[in-house]
Amino acid sequence: MKALVFQGPSRTSWRDVPDPGIKDAADAIVRVDTVTICGTDLHIVKGDVPEVVPGRVLGHEAVGTVVEIGGDVSTVSPGDRVLISCISACGRCRFCRGAQYGQCRGGGGWVLGHTIDGTQAEYVRVPFADLSVHPLPGAVDSDDAVLLADIFPTSYEVGVLNGNVRPGDTVVVVGAGPIGLAAVITARLYSPDRIIAVDLAESRLTTARALGADATVSASEEPERLVEDLTDGLGADVAMEAVGIPETFEMCTRMVRPGGRVANIGVHGKPAVLHLEDLWIKDVTITTGLVDTHSTPMLLGMMAAGRLPSASLVTHRFELGQMEEAYDIFSRAAETGALKVTLGGPQHNAVSVPDLP
Amino acid sequence: MKALVFQGPSRTSWRDVPDPGIKDAADAIVRVDTVTICGTDLHIVKGDVPEVVPGRVLGHEAVGTVVEIGGDVSTVSPGDRVLISCISACGRCRFCRGAQYGQCRGGGGWVLGHTIDGTQAEYVRVPFADLSVHPLPGAVDSDDAVLLADIFPTSYEVGVLNGNVRPGDTVVVVGAGPIGLAAVITARLYSPDRIIAVDLAESRLTTARALGADATVSASEEPERLVEDLTDGLGADVAMEAVGIPETFEMCTRMVRPGGRVANIGVHGKPAVLHLEDLWIKDVTITTGLVDTHSTPMLLGMMAAGRLPSASLVTHRFELGQMEEAYDIFSRAAETGALKVTLGGPQHNAVSVPDLP
Amino acid sequence: MKALVFQGPSRTSWRDVPDPGIKDAADAIVRVDTVTICGTDLHIVKGDVPEVVPGRVLGHEAVGTVVEIGGDVSTVSPGDRVLISCISACGRCRFCRGAQYGQCRGGGGWVLGHTIDGTQAEYVRVPFADLSVHPLPGAVDSDDAVLLADIFPTSYEVGVLNGNVRPGDTVVVVGAGPIGLAAVITARLYSPDRIIAVDLAESRLTTARALGADATVSASEEPERLVEDLTDGLGADVAMEAVGIPETFEMCTRMVRPGGRVANIGVHGKPAVLHLEDLWIKDVTITTGLVDTHSTPMLLGMMAAGRLPSASLVTHRFELGQMEEAYDIFSRAAETGALKVTLGGPQHNAVSVPDLP
Amino acid sequence: MKALVFQGPSRTSWRDVPDPGIKDAADAIVRVDTVTICGTDLHIVKGDVPEVVPGRVLGHEAVGTVVEIGGDVSTVSPGDRVLISCISACGRCRFCRGAQYGQCRGGGGWVLGHTIDGTQAEYVRVPFADLSVHPLPGAVDSDDAVLLADIFPTSYEVGVLNGNVRPGDTVVVVGAGPIGLAAVITARLYSPDRIIAVDLAESRLTTARALGADATVSASEEPERLVEDLTDGLGADVAMEAVGIPETFEMCTRMVRPGGRVANIGVHGKPAVLHLEDLWIKDVTITTGLVDTHSTPMLLGMMAAGRLPSASLVTHRFELGQMEEAYDIFSRAAETGALKVTLGGPQHNAVSVPDLP
Repeated sequence: MKALVFQGPSRTSWRDVPDPGIKDAADAIVRVDTVTICGTDLHIVKGDVPEVVPGRVLGHEAVGTVVEIGGDVSTVSPGDRVLISCISACGRCRFCRGAQYGQCRGGGGWVLGHTIDGTQAEYVRVPFADLSVHPLPGAVDSDDAVLLADIFPTSYEVGVLNGNVRPGDTVVVVGAGPIGLAAVITARLYSPDRIIAVDLAESRLTTARALGADATVSASEEPERLVEDLTDGLGADVAMEAVGIPETFEMCTRMVRPGGRVANIGVHGKPAVLHLEDLWIKDVTITTGLVDTHSTPMLLGMMAAGRLPSASLVTHRFELGQMEEAYDIFSRAAETGALKVTLGGPQHNAVSVPDLP
Repeated sequence: MKALVFQGPSRTSWRDVPDPGIKDAADAIVRVDTVTICGTDLHIVKGDVPEVVPGRVLGHEAVGTVVEIGGDVSTVSPGDRVLISCISACGRCRFCRGAQYGQCRGGGGWVLGHTIDGTQAEYVRVPFADLSVHPLPGAVDSDDAVLLADIFPTSYEVGVLNGNVRPGDTVVVVGAGPIGLAAVITARLYSPDRIIAVDLAESRLTTARALGADATVSASEEPERLVEDLTDGLGADVAMEAVGIPETFEMCTRMVRPGGRVANIGVHGKPAVLHLEDLWIKDVTITTGLVDTHSTPMLLGMMAAGRLPSASLVTHRFELGQMEEAYDIFSRAAETGALKVTLGGPQHNAVSVPDLP
Repeated sequence: MKALVFQGPSRTSWRDVPDPGIKDAADAIVRVDTVTICGTDLHIVKGDVPEVVPGRVLGHEAVGTVVEIGGDVSTVSPGDRVLISCISACGRCRFCRGAQYGQCRGGGGWVLGHTIDGTQAEYVRVPFADLSVHPLPGAVDSDDAVLLADIFPTSYEVGVLNGNVRPGDTVVVVGAGPIGLAAVITARLYSPDRIIAVDLAESRLTTARALGADATVSASEEPERLVEDLTDGLGADVAMEAVGIPETFEMCTRMVRPGGRVANIGVHGKPAVLHLEDLWIKDVTITTGLVDTHSTPMLLGMMAAGRLPSASLVTHRFELGQMEEAYDIFSRAAETGALKVTLGGPQHNAVSVPDLP
Repeated sequence: MKALVFQGPSRTSWRDVPDPGIKDAADAIVRVDTVTICGTDLHIVKGDVPEVVPGRVLGHEAVGTVVEIGGDVSTVSPGDRVLISCISACGRCRFCRGAQYGQCRGGGGWVLGHTIDGTQAEYVRVPFADLSVHPLPGAVDSDDAVLLADIFPTSYEVGVLNGNVRPGDTVVVVGAGPIGLAAVITARLYSPDRIIAVDLAESRLTTARALGADATVSASEEPERLVEDLTDGLGADVAMEAVGIPETFEMCTRMVRPGGRVANIGVHGKPAVLHLEDLWIKDVTITTGLVDTHSTPMLLGMMAAGRLPSASLVTHRFELGQMEEAYDIFSRAAETGALKVTLGGPQHNAVSVPDLP
């Protein structure tokens, strides 16, 4: 089959690799119908994630069709159209028993496109399939559904739930890329009084307003001041970091009110400065986290009911074979205006079990 | 009356000042019977707390006897023996309504010995007396009770409750001074499996063991390794910082397990480095906080019932007039072995309303 | 002044009574501009609430203008337009310190129109004014604001918060009178998947649908079956009782799913049967409660921002002097279609301190 | 093999039945080394649990040695000494994903000795073995460990956690049988100020005091009055029902303070009266529940560390073949003083894989 293979820093290619097969009785083999690229994939390509070794097939988000299952798999069957979650779960370790699948110690967690071959391919082997894929109702479009593989549960769990957004709150979302925009959408589920989005790109702020942000401000125009003005000098109840650099994290810690929460969603490569000389007295709570995807079934139900506006998050569509072009467009987001790019056909309903090539 | 007056960096004196009087109908004037010195007072004396201006009477912890009350005070009367909390509460602002008295916006919060005259004096004016002093049962010794003014509620609320200590947990307390030792005592209320105390001073570690720490380790002997060994490499469920320097805070963030909590109790004067490149994926929660003292009535009940072992926390006792000597002993804790020093008589029961001098 | 005076079971009259005056330094005297009648008032008139003695002025909800304040009152001044909360709070007792004002042990709680004279009058004395009235922004219409005195915080706190409504939930509200309809409105703040309203009156179900109920069903048509059908036989995540009779409470306990919650909002006069032989194994949580009104400031902010659709809850408007007619219309709700009735003028901005008559 | 077989109301016998075998790849076959009898078993024998059909092997608690595993079992191996939990968990359904194993919809929950053959036998088939048995450290005695199969997690989860016991609380435990006594032990993990045990049998109250109850009172001597006296008329923070009859449940609802919690642990066969006419205004929370056993690993660690005093709960010991005699003694607890009775050898360490008979 064809797959996007990491070959070392700044070198990837869409090339022939062996088809995946069942290795463990809990595995499923899934034909990839729709796939997307994550900001984390760009980090990997740059060589920032040393666990990813040359030869690895990248990708941890997809919608596909089950083509084969191991003997232990009981919740999906060949022919089922499924969402492949970015997180796999053994279901047996201490963390999985507490629904903290992202921290799985039994062989799951974030493994796809990281420590095992991933979804940017024609076929993928998904371990622990019973707990790691979700059957999709026909009503959900694949371009929407693929956003449930990572960005919606991540922004909801690591941003909105960790940030404990509540009715009446003032919420700041720093970073209006795909994750930040999904945080704007999912924060609204708790009816905050006001969501303020911060970014450098005016086009992203425009999208943020369209998706429900009540106010937006350029990161270059002292967003702290706007937050102060809107909150009588008190600060935001919740500040979410959705960029992944020290500056934006530190901005969040300046924007939060006494007793408020900073929810870090961004993937960071460098340390930040924590101004404890100011913060020690302020009763702040700072959280970090990898998504657990325990909320995926709820979010999927909400999407199926048409209550999760997601259409404007996908800006570019490609055929699966255009993987390298898609990476190029996605990696130059500032120029191209890319948010999420998807690859693959628009299949909505899987009707027959395809043959493996 | 006599009082300990701050006169600028490194200059204090026990000298004559005017007696305090009722300024507001919610005030009480309290004769100070027993008082103590806080590590924060040493910071003030050094000049680290710019809000404290020369002329200020220091001190925010005391046990005393009410001698006069304003017209609005309804919960205490002259003659009552009371605990003076380090936190005053207006009871009307947004934060007080949510029991976050430490963040009071209505004139309270930490004001005694900070923005108004404090308790290291023969008499003190306590604002918002109804919500800021607690009548003491006769059974509670003043030397014990004065520990409820700050260190017990601080370690319990900012350490144990923020850290969400639970039965079965592994808890690390970094710093075994008065606050850290009180954290050891109050963490035990939730029956963790194991409390590990870390300090440089062997004498403090000995006290920690006597008060219930299951293991102790010198801060110079790679305490991270002990924590790792005791937790199968996972890390501590809860790490509490009770020193107030960047190194110990950073140590806590290295010791905590995925999904765990770092509760900062220490007062910090400098920023720390937050290694988000390691922590972003670890699901950690970091909290800071000034005490609210909402737990004081519960802790007082527990002390009255003899369930809060506190005797060994007071290492030195002085007469009130020996304030300068007490400061000297307390400020050289490494040599003197001082934990808490108390000043004043051992009065247990106030029986008559004393005259103002 | 004129007031609605309870004179014993089934006897009330709008008659002259002495003007109220300041009795305690924490009191405020408020001129009543807009007032409403509560279902609880009907219970009182029937004689069901023995604490209410003949001679009592009824009413616990109003919007008015402060005309006089006691010496301790600091958060409102004469001339301020205010919401009078149904709950007064001493601010000093154990319960008030935990924001459980409804359970106040210091002279507050539900006292207006219950143990002291209430708001169905030209003037009312409000005890503990600092914690018991809320200044109103000009943008909020009095007919809307008066709904914040009781029904909105009651439905939100005792229904939605106690019921722990969450995104994705199926919520049943049994009873679509004013409280039930306010529960439909405030449950939506948490984005449940589906709200099902149950009542006998088709007109109320129509209003429920207009206010956001996704499905409605007559109480006479086996609502349990609809809930079962919509939830694959599992039951509702949350069932709220908003009627106050045993039958509807018991219906809620049959409708709730394993692990779900029954939030009782209704005022009951008789015991219900609790089928523990079915429920012991089901992991259900049942809550009861008098409102604390801790959420009033948040709800007021939401109303001021136009986010709390409330207009259709007020079905009838009267002059203050038409009190007896208003009671008549309200007490025959099944015929008249009355939800909330309001009395008094539409004043939006108080500009001058009126003279006491 | 031999097993205790239910043959219809009031008829059981210890007789020959076929050996169990692996039916599903997730099964384990366990040789029963130590087993006990539950109050629920007595209900079954009486015919009160219609799901239990004649021919069923009873019992849902045991310690044993794994002798055979299905192909999917990965966390235990033949020869392992294990605790068999009263709850089995499929690990894949909605409830298992939220650690609510007691409500499992995928074939687990309480099945052993209920809908499939149980543990009162020489061998037992345990479904979903990975999530339903727990390897035992050698240090834990089997007579202690068997108490972790049901009574300790039940009293802790359904009583102490649902009741939200906190430091400083007044806790009442109504019923001092095995479950109530385990509730006394596990409530102490949260350092309540005071635990009051209520029972009719003086011998059980004596045991309650030995295990940490601070006060005890006969159910016939108006325990409500003692609770009132000890709490200044307020009532208990938490009342736990550990009997299973309407009278004791109703007693709990009378004893609880405003804002308090009633945690029902008892198994009920009849409805109770819920006095909503008193309770509607009191802010009470009432919970019911079947144990989930999510706390079993924590409790096991605590027992291994010697922190769970349990010895006095086992009053009688038998050989496995004395099953009928053990039932007789246990069913006449009022005369015999029986709390828990255990059957089987005192094996502490399994060293070899036994042959199936």
